[in-house]
Amino acid sequence: VTRRERALAVADGRTLVSADPATVSWLTGHVPDIEIGPSPFSAPPIVVLDPEGRVRLVVSEDEAGGLDADVEAVTFPGFAVEDVDRRARAVELALSLIGDGPVAAELASLPAALVQRPFDDVGRTLQRARAVKDPDEVEAIRAAIAVTDAGQAAARAAFAAGRTELELWHETRAAIESAAGERIPVLADLVTGPRTAEVGGPPSTRLVEATDLLLVDLGPRVAGYWGDSCAVVALGEPPAHVREAHAAAYEALEGVKALVRAGASSAEIDAAARGTLSYPHHTGHGVGRTYHEEPRIVPDADRVLEAGMVIALEPGTYGDDWGVRVEQVVLVTDDGCEVLSGHDLNL
Amino acid sequence: VTRRERALAVADGRTLVSADPATVSWLTGHVPDIEIGPSPFSAPPIVVLDPEGRVRLVVSEDEAGGLDADVEAVTFPGFAVEDVDRRARAVELALSLIGDGPVAAELASLPAALVQRPFDDVGRTLQRARAVKDPDEVEAIRAAIAVTDAGQAAARAAFAAGRTELELWHETRAAIESAAGERIPVLADLVTGPRTAEVGGPPSTRLVEATDLLLVDLGPRVAGYWGDSCAVVALGEPPAHVREAHAAAYEALEGVKALVRAGASSAEIDAAARGTLSYPHHTGHGVGRTYHEEPRIVPDADRVLEAGMVIALEPGTYGDDWGVRVEQVVLVTDDGCEVLSGHDLNL
Repeated sequence: VTRRERALAVADGRTLVSADPATVSWLTGHVPDIEIGPSPFSAPPIVVLDPEGRVRLVVSEDEAGGLDADVEAVTFPGFAVEDVDRRARAVELALSLIGDGPVAAELASLPAALVQRPFDDVGRTLQRARAVKDPDEVEAIRAAIAVTDAGQAAARAAFAAGRTELELWHETRAAIESAAGERIPVLADLVTGPRTAEVGGPPSTRLVEATDLLLVDLGPRVAGYWGDSCAVVALGEPPAHVREAHAAAYEALEGVKALVRAGASSAEIDAAARGTLSYPHHTGHGVGRTYHEEPRIVPDADRVLEAGMVIALEPGTYGDDWGVRVEQVVLVTDDGCEVLSGHDLNL
Repeated sequence: VTRRERALAVADGRTLVSADPATVSWLTGHVPDIEIGPSPFSAPPIVVLDPEGRVRLVVSEDEAGGLDADVEAVTFPGFAVEDVDRRARAVELALSLIGDGPVAAELASLPAALVQRPFDDVGRTLQRARAVKDPDEVEAIRAAIAVTDAGQAAARAAFAAGRTELELWHETRAAIESAAGERIPVLADLVTGPRTAEVGGPPSTRLVEATDLLLVDLGPRVAGYWGDSCAVVALGEPPAHVREAHAAAYEALEGVKALVRAGASSAEIDAAARGTLSYPHHTGHGVGRTYHEEPRIVPDADRVLEAGMVIALEPGTYGDDWGVRVEQVVLVTDDGCEVLSGHDLNL
C-alpha cells in the first residue's frame, strides 16, 4: 500500500484537498522553503487529489520544480514584478480543480476563502495515514539521520571550556550542511551547564565551563525528510547523580526499544519509560515529512504501532541544574525495530 | 499616529482579526519561531483587536512570552504530553473573543473553521498600514541592519578561491548570529561565478575560482524585524563589462535614492532605475515585520511614499555568466531619505 493509496482510502471516493505543508509534500514531493517563514507576496501550495488518483498542486510558478513525476503543477504568478493578489489566485485555481463533488479536507490548513460549502474534515485521519512510511521514505529518513549523526559528532568535537554555545552551534550546523551539501533547516536544542535542566532551548552566548554538560538535540531536514537525535556530553568527570541519571535514561531507551514492534501500544511504551524516569515531554513521536508527527508516544493517546512507522524515542530526566536525554530513531518492523541512528550516546 | 491607531483606523469600528504572522507581530510584539516551519501539533497565533483598542492574542502557552505590555495572551495548551486538537482549541478561543459584531479580517490568513459568517477582508489595507514605521520600529530595523552589515563584512572577508559557497555562508551566518547574540532566521542569496547570472540562490558546494564574482544578499531577522542588503565582490580585476555594469547599478541606486521623499511615486522611482538597467525583479520593497512588504517598488503598483516608511532599493543587471546588484535600506523622510545601511558596496 503506497502513500497515495492510503490517501485515497482516507478520501473514500471524495476529492481530497489540503494546504498542510506536510500533506502537500507527502503527496507531491514539493519541498517548501521554510527557514524564513511564509512569503507575504505568495501563497502556500494547495494539493488536490481527485478520486481517480490524479494529483494536482496549486503552486507559485517559482516553486513548481521538483515535484513527483506524475504530479501536475497548476501555477499562479511567482515573486516577480507583478502586483497581483497571489492568495486570491491560488484560491480561484483550487476551486476550479475541486469542482462540485464531495470534499474531504484538511480543514485547519485551508484558507477561509476556499471553504464556501461544507467540507468533511479528515485532518487527524490524514496525520495518522502519514505515519507508515513507504520504502523510498525510509531511505530518505536514513539519509537525514546520517546528516544528523554528522551534526552530533561535530557538536561533541566542538564542546570545550571557554567557548560559547553559539560557537558550538555554528560548527555543528556547518558540519550538518556540509554533510547535506546544501543549506537546510535544522530543529535544535543546544544548551550547556545549568541550562540543561530546562530540557532544551536555542544556543546562547553562555560560555562553557570546565565541568559542564552539553545537551544537543538535532533535527535537520534533508530533501524534505527530518532526522532527529539527542545526546548529552560531559566535560571532565560528572558527579555520581548525573552519571546515574544518564545510565537510567540509557536503560529506559533500551527498554522502550525492546517493546517496539508492529502491534505494540504507544501508551504502554510511554508508561514503561515513565515508570523509571520523570520528564515533562513526550517519550517519542513519528518522524517524516514533519519533525514531530504521528504516532505520538504520550500517556493519553494510544496508538497501535505498525510496521513501516519511523519513531524517535527520547526518555530523559532533569534536576535543578542538570538534565540528560538520549534519543534514537527506529523503524518499526513486524518483530521489533531497526535502529536507524548511529551517533555516540556516551556521556 | 501609532501602529495601533493605524490598525484601528483600518478596523473602522469593527473587530479586527488576523492570523497573518506579520500583523500578529506588529500588534502584539510576538516573534514567532519560523526557521523550522509550522508545528504540526500547535496552531498559529490569532490576534483580536477590539474597537476600543484592546489587543488579545490567542497563542500556545509555550509562546505567550515577550508580548507588548498591554497585550493579553489567551492561551491554548503547549507542546507537551496532552493529545488535544490545538488548532480546534485556538479557533474556539478566537470565536469567543470575536463576539457577534462586525469583523474586519485578514481573511487569507484565517483558518476556515473560524469564518462562520461574512467577515470584511481588509488584508491589503492592513499590509499598507504596516508600511509606515513607528520610531521604535525604526530603531529595531537599525539594529537588524547593523547585524546585516556584520554579515556583509564577513562574506567579503571569507571570499577566496578554493573555498565552497557553503563555507562562505557558514562564516557569514556565524558572524550574523554572533553580532545578534542568538540564533536567528536569515534570508540569503549567496552565489559565485556564473551563478551570479541567476540573480540569486542558496549557497552550494561550488568551489570559488580565482576571478569569480560573489553576489551576497542578506536579510537577518533581529528581534522580529528584518534587515536587507546586497553587495557584489570581485576576486582579482573584473573584466570591463562587469566593472561598467557594477558602476551603472551603483549609479542607479544613487539615482533612485535621490528621488525618495514623502510624496514621491513608487512607480516613478521604479521607472527611473529601469530606464538605465534591465533586471527581472522589483526595484525595491518595504522592510519591517516581513522581509518584503509594502510599499512594493515595481512598475504596475503605484504607491505614494510617506515619511516613516523603510524601503530597500536594489537595482541590478545580469549577463550570460555574470550578475551585479547593489542594495541599501533607507528611511523615507519629508525631504529625502536617510541611508540606514552601512556595508561596503565596492566591487
